Amino acid sequence: MASRSRASARALLASLLAPALVALLVAPARGRGGRDHGDWAAAALVPPLPPREDAARVARFVTHVCDWGALATLSTDQAVRGWAFADVLSLSDGPPGAGSGVPYFYLSPLQQSVGNLQENPHATLTMSLAQTNFCRKQGFDPQSPLCAHIILSGTVTKVNQTEMGFAKHSLFVRHPEMKTWPSSHNWFFAKLNITNIWVLDYFGGPKIVTPEEYYNVTFHQ
Amino acid sequence: MASRSRASARALLASLLAPALVALLVAPARGRGGRDHGDWAAAALVPPLPPREDAARVARFVTHVCDWGALATLSTDQAVRGWAFADVLSLSDGPPGAGSGVPYFYLSPLQQSVGNLQENPHATLTMSLAQTNFCRKQGFDPQSPLCAHIILSGTVTKVNQTEMGFAKHSLFVRHPEMKTWPSSHNWFFAKLNITNIWVLDYFGGPKIVTPEEYYNVTFHQ
Repeated sequence: MASRSRASARALLASLLAPALVALLVAPARGRGGRDHGDWAAAALVPPLPPREDAARVARFVTHVCDWGALATLSTDQAVRGWAFADVLSLSDGPPGAGSGVPYFYLSPLQQSVGNLQENPHATLTMSLAQTNFCRKQGFDPQSPLCAHIILSGTVTKVNQTEMGFAKHSLFVRHPEMKTWPSSHNWFFAKLNITNIWVLDYFGGPKIVTPEEYYNVTFHQ
Repeated sequence: MASRSRASARALLASLLAPALVALLVAPARGRGGRDHGDWAAAALVPPLPPREDAARVARFVTHVCDWGALATLSTDQAVRGWAFADVLSLSDGPPGAGSGVPYFYLSPLQQSVGNLQENPHATLTMSLAQTNFCRKQGFDPQSPLCAHIILSGTVTKVNQTEMGFAKHSLFVRHPEMKTWPSSHNWFFAKLNITNIWVLDYFGGPKIVTPEEYYNVTFHQ
């Protein structure tokens, strides 16, 4: 080609690639940690799954990369009293790259689940990688164990003074919208005190992980 | 440009656009209905949310576009007997564009939730648009009511002969991996018989929708 055509072709190529390059520049490189609400490019940044045989590590991984989960509580609603009730809650176990394994919540007494917890604090939280792009990219069905999910039973309690700062930072950095929620809803920080852990990450049924094994996992950043 | 350069530029343009054009051709145009496991392009195809004040329609919408949910049951596990238990299940209410509102499941007696249901069939299913890209694209936190989610309480039972064909087709077309799951797991088709519906799609607390209102919604395709 003549050099003027080469320049035209380069200009065409650059104009086609420019949006993609800009998207790469603005995507947070720190990994998916809940800061991608609105930032579609960041959804691609789920770190690799730990070895599936290390169930405790897989459990910590799932807790850390998930932004939300479903919490089961015993219903106090007249219509369905005593039945198992399920609801969706946002959560965070720590800032991106610094997960503690403790699921923190930002709750209001106006929420149905919180009314239930006030009568009986026992609850079960489930979190699945199906909420990330991991399963979709690998072609794993949400109900396949390969699309790893975990089940954590325990009690939900208010966070005490010592933990308050970490809970607040963990939640607000990954759920910045929370900072705008109306104070009239009497929001408070809560946590799940985990007593039982089941990990479904491979065929063969749920693996039991003890809280001790779960909290003993360390991640090197 | 000389005509040979125009041809070169067109060839360059075509080669750059070709992958995108192929992706558009293979992405199911029928809307996100669970067939995108592995097909990242299809994740963009969530139809627009119905008007939020039409809570019954919003509920039907959420049920239809969701591929999975969390089911709360009363635990029969010795470790946590009588507590509320939560697990993740794939589901489908119908083929893409033909949702019935009935959540169908493909279950095995080996699953923890199924052991629980065998003792007490009362359960609550929750599904959230947070599992699609809707909330992420709009910048809605998963716990914001704007990131709509619904809560359906009722009983889970095996599907009868009349419904078997529709349940099977609904599930297998959206969860093709299910066709490969081992028969040794004694899979069966089940459904949630809905008695209570709560819709959280706007500020002001949960909206109650009756099963009659829910099933009276019609979608024109």
